[in-house]
Amino acid sequence: MVIGGDAAGMSAASQARRLRKPGELEIVAFERGSFTSFSACGIPYWVGGDVEERDDLIARTPEAHRERAIDVRMRTEVVEIDPRERRVRSRDLASGAEEWTAYDKLVIATGARPLRPDLPGIDAPGVHGVQTLDDGQALLDTLAEMETAGKAEGRRAVVIGAGYIGVEMAEALVHRGYEVTVVNRGKEPMSTLDPDMGRLVHEAMTGMGIAMVNDAEVTKILTGDDGRARAVATEDREFPADVVVLGIGVRPETALARAAGLPLGEHGGLLTDLAMRVRGPVADGAIWAGGDCVEVLDLVSGRERHIALGTHANKHGQVIGSNVGGGYATFPGVVGTAVSKVCDLEIARTGLREKDARAAGLQYVTVTIESTSRAGYYPGAALMTVKMLAERRTGRLLGTQIVGREGAAKRVDVAAVALTARMTVEQMTALDLGYAPPFSPVWDPVLVAARKAVTAVRAGGA
Amino acid sequence: MVIGGDAAGMSAASQARRLRKPGELEIVAFERGSFTSFSACGIPYWVGGDVEERDDLIARTPEAHRERAIDVRMRTEVVEIDPRERRVRSRDLASGAEEWTAYDKLVIATGARPLRPDLPGIDAPGVHGVQTLDDGQALLDTLAEMETAGKAEGRRAVVIGAGYIGVEMAEALVHRGYEVTVVNRGKEPMSTLDPDMGRLVHEAMTGMGIAMVNDAEVTKILTGDDGRARAVATEDREFPADVVVLGIGVRPETALARAAGLPLGEHGGLLTDLAMRVRGPVADGAIWAGGDCVEVLDLVSGRERHIALGTHANKHGQVIGSNVGGGYATFPGVVGTAVSKVCDLEIARTGLREKDARAAGLQYVTVTIESTSRAGYYPGAALMTVKMLAERRTGRLLGTQIVGREGAAKRVDVAAVALTARMTVEQMTALDLGYAPPFSPVWDPVLVAARKAVTAVRAGGA
Repeated sequence: MVIGGDAAGMSAASQARRLRKPGELEIVAFERGSFTSFSACGIPYWVGGDVEERDDLIARTPEAHRERAIDVRMRTEVVEIDPRERRVRSRDLASGAEEWTAYDKLVIATGARPLRPDLPGIDAPGVHGVQTLDDGQALLDTLAEMETAGKAEGRRAVVIGAGYIGVEMAEALVHRGYEVTVVNRGKEPMSTLDPDMGRLVHEAMTGMGIAMVNDAEVTKILTGDDGRARAVATEDREFPADVVVLGIGVRPETALARAAGLPLGEHGGLLTDLAMRVRGPVADGAIWAGGDCVEVLDLVSGRERHIALGTHANKHGQVIGSNVGGGYATFPGVVGTAVSKVCDLEIARTGLREKDARAAGLQYVTVTIESTSRAGYYPGAALMTVKMLAERRTGRLLGTQIVGREGAAKRVDVAAVALTARMTVEQMTALDLGYAPPFSPVWDPVLVAARKAVTAVRAGGA
Repeated sequence: MVIGGDAAGMSAASQARRLRKPGELEIVAFERGSFTSFSACGIPYWVGGDVEERDDLIARTPEAHRERAIDVRMRTEVVEIDPRERRVRSRDLASGAEEWTAYDKLVIATGARPLRPDLPGIDAPGVHGVQTLDDGQALLDTLAEMETAGKAEGRRAVVIGAGYIGVEMAEALVHRGYEVTVVNRGKEPMSTLDPDMGRLVHEAMTGMGIAMVNDAEVTKILTGDDGRARAVATEDREFPADVVVLGIGVRPETALARAAGLPLGEHGGLLTDLAMRVRGPVADGAIWAGGDCVEVLDLVSGRERHIALGTHANKHGQVIGSNVGGGYATFPGVVGTAVSKVCDLEIARTGLREKDARAAGLQYVTVTIESTSRAGYYPGAALMTVKMLAERRTGRLLGTQIVGREGAAKRVDVAAVALTARMTVEQMTALDLGYAPPFSPVWDPVLVAARKAVTAVRAGGA
């Protein structure tokens, strides 16, 4: 039995089905929404017009799952887990009818819920989250309404939050011709980067005509006579808005798990073992969990983190499905890789930021270099900035952040693999990375940073 | 003392100078040509017009080196190394004057020479190599001559050889408007790939209008009444050519080293230790070597290989300069990464091909998958094919080959780092690679291949 019909849940169901025929394993999945297996990460591109159809974001429909003998029950919300009796209580959202269903093995994949600060006006028409396809459709409807209402010029959007969702939504709204203001609580956008790297994002966004307001706490959403949002207010300013988008981040959706007495970590996510089985006596070995509702081990800091990301959810589902299906697989953990873009700016990070390293008790050196995506003489060579953290004394790579244009973001993968392998920056300088003038300078930018980090580690003394 | 003023030699000189002031270390470099520190890898893009000026390919001129107290002696060829007396005999190519110069430490960076088969007509006007800037200029002069002579339509070029240089020169000549035929001895182009992957390159080149002739041994260059090359002949065919480009590959330039009694490997390259110091009693610890004239350790097969590539030469130079300057560095070896492009086709490889694995005594499984560079629904998502080799039983990654469009080639870096870390394909499936719709599907193509390889390893039995 699976609770949640998106990436983690349906990957688990599909993988278990691959290993076990219908006669060997019955699979039931409950989904409270109207869609299965959709790409929430794609919503900004759908809103921005890069992706034409909502259905392009749906990897597999409920019907397609049913054809593979997965009994998907849509618009059906699980409202209680009873781990002692190994059963769940579900509610048909149309009829309100409830029933108990027994499980032998349960997969919790309830995802995350977007943060929605308790502010005056937050529920006004014109204020939109972008977590589900329904959210995306509602936002698109609002935009279409305004656009057909003749407000074709000078349309203004305010995005609250400057993390991945915030900056991607800023891009989407720029693409649709809006004047965009991003209001951000932090010192710089992209708090997943160190502030010095976030500063580069800030400058690039300003260069794209996006108004970036940092150090600003939203106090309320102001509404007009028609009850619609008309501006976002902070302590000391007002930002007029025809539409407001919430991009503040998410928290694990673990109310059910909490009520059932399952173990949650300090970030509110479920705690599992390496096979993605929920820990502790209440779960009693019969419950698995994955995706945005769990905490994962950060292999660099040795601590649990919460990271809502489709690629992890898919891996978790694969691991859970293998184990539930009688196979064996583990999810060893993450190194914290993330990539994003705002218009033509590419942003990437992996491993620890400075404050993460300090929190983990690690001493470190940092270096920052500028290089290019291709040989300097090759057309299209674009500047990028690479920051690298290495442990003091040992020189072990701790983290890498990259901000640049085309060809910048995916270079972070080299650092991600190096982190996984616990390489030192000196070992990295010898890495045999692909070189040809259209693809890289003779020293890849990641290696230039590693070389400088070697020097910094040496200079850092004992 | 340095023999050879290109990547390895001048990197070594520069790094040694960084560590030792002029009063502490005198540095002399002999270069028989007219340029220092140039990018031979950039020549195809200069010929093709992507790079405008020859000087764009020069990273540092002799004058710039001299300003940093490196005594570069241009057009001066070293004609003998006398390791017993620790001296070299050099010849001023202008005057023919010779002299002996003593060294304390010698760096051999004599590079590689292009293969030039001993065929009738090979020295005719209109037949060009592309190893040096002078070669590139001579080819450009020939092309300009033809173009101004009014032969503006239906110009035909034949490229002999379908390795990196061959396919890059094919692209360059297509860019200049030539009808291009590539004549290749092998079964498929790009013999650095397995033939099944080379086949994809073949098909793509054909699609670009490049005539690809495989399994063909060139027997002679036919010349016209004016003595110029007019066609390339194989056993059974003739390919008309206004210009012929040799792109057959290179061999280590080690005649001097051989004459001096220094140790050469089975590919004709100098043999060094991990600090890039030439092995054996003749060198007596006073000679280093790096760049295209040495053999390097292949970390996957455990054997020595010869790989002529600017990025290795630069790393060797860095290591040699550190050691000669009194520091310490090593070059641990390579995994055999190479990337290239023909027009919009990207080609990449790392690790072992099937025949390399067999030659190394390794048993393996192979898998091939198709995926895309971005989320399937994101604009510009381009197909790529990834082939992966994993060791039978252990599942250790042995090699990866990628052929695709934009975003394909540099993905091979993930496999290159994984090879260096001796990861298994199962370990790779958990790699935390950057994911966002504009940059990758939720499972990166390299991970899709790794997942399939895991299944193949399991199915491969004990």
